[in-house]
Amino acid sequence: MHFASDNAGPTHPKILEAVIEASSGYAMPYGADRWAEAAKAEIRETFEAPEAEIFFIATGTATNSMILGALAAPWSAIFCHERAHILIDESNAPEFFTNGARIAPVGGAAGKMDPKQLDAMLSRYAPGDIHTPAQGPVSITNVTEAGTVYKLPEIDAISTIAADKSLALHLDGARFGNACAALGCSAAEMSWKRGVAAVSFGGTKNGCMSVEAAIFFDRDLARNFERIRMRSGHLFSKHRLLSAQMSAYLKDGLWLDLAGRANAAAADLASALGNHVEFVNQPEANMLFVTFPRALHRKLRGAGAQFYSFGNAEEGPDDAPLLARLVCDWSATPENTERFATLLKAG
Amino acid sequence: MHFASDNAGPTHPKILEAVIEASSGYAMPYGADRWAEAAKAEIRETFEAPEAEIFFIATGTATNSMILGALAAPWSAIFCHERAHILIDESNAPEFFTNGARIAPVGGAAGKMDPKQLDAMLSRYAPGDIHTPAQGPVSITNVTEAGTVYKLPEIDAISTIAADKSLALHLDGARFGNACAALGCSAAEMSWKRGVAAVSFGGTKNGCMSVEAAIFFDRDLARNFERIRMRSGHLFSKHRLLSAQMSAYLKDGLWLDLAGRANAAAADLASALGNHVEFVNQPEANMLFVTFPRALHRKLRGAGAQFYSFGNAEEGPDDAPLLARLVCDWSATPENTERFATLLKAG
Amino acid sequence: MHFASDNAGPTHPKILEAVIEASSGYAMPYGADRWAEAAKAEIRETFEAPEAEIFFIATGTATNSMILGALAAPWSAIFCHERAHILIDESNAPEFFTNGARIAPVGGAAGKMDPKQLDAMLSRYAPGDIHTPAQGPVSITNVTEAGTVYKLPEIDAISTIAADKSLALHLDGARFGNACAALGCSAAEMSWKRGVAAVSFGGTKNGCMSVEAAIFFDRDLARNFERIRMRSGHLFSKHRLLSAQMSAYLKDGLWLDLAGRANAAAADLASALGNHVEFVNQPEANMLFVTFPRALHRKLRGAGAQFYSFGNAEEGPDDAPLLARLVCDWSATPENTERFATLLKAG
Amino acid sequence: MHFASDNAGPTHPKILEAVIEASSGYAMPYGADRWAEAAKAEIRETFEAPEAEIFFIATGTATNSMILGALAAPWSAIFCHERAHILIDESNAPEFFTNGARIAPVGGAAGKMDPKQLDAMLSRYAPGDIHTPAQGPVSITNVTEAGTVYKLPEIDAISTIAADKSLALHLDGARFGNACAALGCSAAEMSWKRGVAAVSFGGTKNGCMSVEAAIFFDRDLARNFERIRMRSGHLFSKHRLLSAQMSAYLKDGLWLDLAGRANAAAADLASALGNHVEFVNQPEANMLFVTFPRALHRKLRGAGAQFYSFGNAEEGPDDAPLLARLVCDWSATPENTERFATLLKAG
Repeated sequence: MHFASDNAGPTHPKILEAVIEASSGYAMPYGADRWAEAAKAEIRETFEAPEAEIFFIATGTATNSMILGALAAPWSAIFCHERAHILIDESNAPEFFTNGARIAPVGGAAGKMDPKQLDAMLSRYAPGDIHTPAQGPVSITNVTEAGTVYKLPEIDAISTIAADKSLALHLDGARFGNACAALGCSAAEMSWKRGVAAVSFGGTKNGCMSVEAAIFFDRDLARNFERIRMRSGHLFSKHRLLSAQMSAYLKDGLWLDLAGRANAAAADLASALGNHVEFVNQPEANMLFVTFPRALHRKLRGAGAQFYSFGNAEEGPDDAPLLARLVCDWSATPENTERFATLLKAG
Repeated sequence: MHFASDNAGPTHPKILEAVIEASSGYAMPYGADRWAEAAKAEIRETFEAPEAEIFFIATGTATNSMILGALAAPWSAIFCHERAHILIDESNAPEFFTNGARIAPVGGAAGKMDPKQLDAMLSRYAPGDIHTPAQGPVSITNVTEAGTVYKLPEIDAISTIAADKSLALHLDGARFGNACAALGCSAAEMSWKRGVAAVSFGGTKNGCMSVEAAIFFDRDLARNFERIRMRSGHLFSKHRLLSAQMSAYLKDGLWLDLAGRANAAAADLASALGNHVEFVNQPEANMLFVTFPRALHRKLRGAGAQFYSFGNAEEGPDDAPLLARLVCDWSATPENTERFATLLKAG
Repeated sequence: MHFASDNAGPTHPKILEAVIEASSGYAMPYGADRWAEAAKAEIRETFEAPEAEIFFIATGTATNSMILGALAAPWSAIFCHERAHILIDESNAPEFFTNGARIAPVGGAAGKMDPKQLDAMLSRYAPGDIHTPAQGPVSITNVTEAGTVYKLPEIDAISTIAADKSLALHLDGARFGNACAALGCSAAEMSWKRGVAAVSFGGTKNGCMSVEAAIFFDRDLARNFERIRMRSGHLFSKHRLLSAQMSAYLKDGLWLDLAGRANAAAADLASALGNHVEFVNQPEANMLFVTFPRALHRKLRGAGAQFYSFGNAEEGPDDAPLLARLVCDWSATPENTERFATLLKAG
Repeated sequence: MHFASDNAGPTHPKILEAVIEASSGYAMPYGADRWAEAAKAEIRETFEAPEAEIFFIATGTATNSMILGALAAPWSAIFCHERAHILIDESNAPEFFTNGARIAPVGGAAGKMDPKQLDAMLSRYAPGDIHTPAQGPVSITNVTEAGTVYKLPEIDAISTIAADKSLALHLDGARFGNACAALGCSAAEMSWKRGVAAVSFGGTKNGCMSVEAAIFFDRDLARNFERIRMRSGHLFSKHRLLSAQMSAYLKDGLWLDLAGRANAAAADLASALGNHVEFVNQPEANMLFVTFPRALHRKLRGAGAQFYSFGNAEEGPDDAPLLARLVCDWSATPENTERFATLLKAG
């Protein structure tokens, strides 16, 4: 009953095999090897973007922050949802990598930026005055931090505003695969065809060991990236270990297949829980936010279930509701789901 | 004939096995797992330092820089050899992680800081004046960037100066194992018993995939480290993959065994080359700096040898000498060595 | 008809005399002179704070940012009103001086932080997780950016929340005098007696040339300030010129007298405008935010009036309302006020 | 007997008059006033540089650091003499303003960079490798920190190396006037005609209150300067007070006249001291570095003389020599000089 996070699951066997293969023999360090080019080619093909500039990084926080470091000046404001990972969960990493850019939080229901509120926030950072921070990139997350998925027209609405002001649009795709699977769209359709300038394309939460790709559709925006990566210590000497994961992840659409499995498992779990819990949002990908009584939190944990409770589940009255996050990864099994649902429904 | 770098070699099978084992099943992310504690316990035992505070990081540049970030104020000067990796090869990473500390280069023969020159440089940063950068940590590298090894009394000489001024001493041990193997001393004897406050303990260049440990013998100096690691995107979600490597690396002294093999291979290579090349320094660990004619650089490369030439080997007169760096890792074979030496000696 | 800003007015003669006096003869640089100690003594007396640590700086942005640099870690969040000067008008200076701290905007009517919204925002930065930025200082501005004045119990409400979480409270007092004059309270009553840890005490907008004081009631919080000031180039060599201004400003309560004059002038202006304009907030100090038709903006500007319009006054229909900011400084005259009001009322 | 520093002297009456004049009446803040344009016009005329971009700042450290912030990337190395003010006396301000650039110290006799040593240091930062910090601007100081003056061909020698590698050349001219006066050359001849890209043009040490100009001969290099100044809190609201000083300073060549007086006073002092002291370098401008017995340091201080001793003058044997710095400013008087020399010669 492992629903803590999709970064807590096992490595997929095909990823592991690729790493084992890349671990033998000699290869020049820092990406000057055959694996790097192969993996970049896979990304360019998957994204239908033959000109994309691509970098591999081991962690998602670093990927987001370095992309923002390439897109924002130190005197910029970056616009994102008020619950965005870059705002709440990265310990000011974006500020570190941008040498002190501002993050301006924008409201919106269901974890998605409301275009009107984006407009309003942008108006606080109106250009033409050096006292006011400059308008910088806009960043959205899909799958959102609330477990919802921006529909393509919703991305368009944000993208149009950004384009109108010549601001680059960044997509935090730590769960890019899950969003694509949910939308039934291609990688290109969810990114550059929507006006996205740069993507954090996640592998770690979806069966890889530790690898993400920073993808720039406009190569000019990437010109400082190598230096930013180098001087933050994120350039791997044994870079082939990152590339090998990414190649295997993209080969034959494994990334989309695994994401689909995770989404399906979450849908099954949602069905099984039915009206025994209260859903904060309708589940759309692989992450559920549900409320149920504290007593059940305690009981499920006692039975070995792992999940995130928003608050101290050990305290408070039995019937007081508490929010939980339940995440399914590619390896989720029906048995696990069923056991969890049964325990919960038993009350 | 792979002598390019010890970060270009294969992963040792025992490390790979450990990673495979840690890749299966669920484990809570960010180090809240059994592998982390096990690996830390191995380090504490290896270093005879039950109170040490330990962090695992994927790259050496990040490890050095984060330790310096924990030891130095933004208005500090950091003192190191004028050829130190932190000065020349990390693209200002230490400045990034310290929010702008200075690096003050100190001269000295054979890649080792000359204590007298350290004293002289410290006197330029005399305390008591807020205009002058504050005296900050002293950093040495062992094995040095010149392939030499600080003897224990040489470390003492540096350490005494640092201690006299209450400055923390950092040891960049990207090749810690090779230095220990060369000196025939224990990990403790080369670190805290010499007054070293913090060590970058390298695994990547010695058979691991990608793992280093930041080891603080004084826990108080480590108090900001977690935040520095987090906001630079270096905290792995699948942290067990780092821990597992480190455990396997330390188990039964594998680290020292592999380093010894690399050193022995380099000694064999040095013998085989004999007086056919000119040695910049007497080889002491696993790295040779030797000079031989450009024509031989070209011939060896043509035959598939990989090594670093300091300058463009493709240009210049045949008999003009050019400096080369030859590095052996744990997997170096007598066949490789012999073939290289034979080709070179054939002229 | 100068209502553009209180930083656009003349220097008060007594300030000028003090600067002239301090401009003659020799004095050791960087504050090692008699003026510095005299000015600090004046501040300690005015604030009834014999233990306060005090620094003089030429600009308000630098004063705010350096205080925040002393109070916040790079991984902190700083909490302020969503219209605060430090958020909107300093081009990310606080991020620069804190090496990348976050600024978290809090809502609230009339330019004042709503304690409930502060509580809610703090809960997003709940301690105990290194992924979430740490809770850092709380910063309020009095007079607020909306021209309103926090009443003492309103400061208490913020201060209690900050104290409960052991967060330092900073007061941006660019218009400290105007707030004191409006409240009829002492400097101490508006600062340390309310739990304020550090004050930016403004002189520039109230008759000085260019001087502000950073005042720390808890000296321990000030320990890095000198280095922060030095390495940002804000330590004046001819520091006596700053100190002399501050001494003259405090002597015989000149600061409060000038602020009172500015407030009275604004009150007169408000009376004169009466219901010919719409007030955004009831005027409480020396700054009015009022709405009146664009045609009148144009007419007043044509007649030489200087004030800030929020939008392009040259465009739009005659009867479309537009927001204006009218600021009175110590030198405002009844003639000016009358002329402005007459023109406006004439329609 | 005030020889402590040229930043300890009085304000020249013409500067004071200009400040008094600019202190009355209203003027729009932040440089949108008539004084700013007038002062910029004076600089453009003085430097024969009609296209120069110019900014006024209150302190020299800020001026140097902001110029370097505009010229260097965070991953650059800045090349300067090993005794340069930016290296030794600004508490890492350049690192702060460049977001972490490196400063690479270059040796050379008499406080001047040796072109050969500059070449050698540049070769350590050879381009083409992202691990090595990038070659950034070269910075020289004239008058040097050793009191010597670069001759025009000496500047050419540095400038040629910088130009050959397309590196911008910065001139720290805290004592620009004294250098011009010593060389008998024009401002243009010592700056852009020598290939200098940007100058810190000092006023504070030469009769002004507190004003320096950042002058960029290539406007493109200045494009980030306004933001750098703004977010470091160095944009004065009452900016006219800076501009007014600068205008008066340039008018009718006052700057050169005052510098000439200071140089002449220093030459007189040097003559008067004759062979009673040992000169470290032959005095060339307004600063002498001389060695004489500790007993005389004590005697002169006892008699009220102010000067900087390199070491604790109160300790050590009477006849032990100690280095002193003696600086003359524009207001130095023959009486002062004579009295000092007489006391010293009396032994």
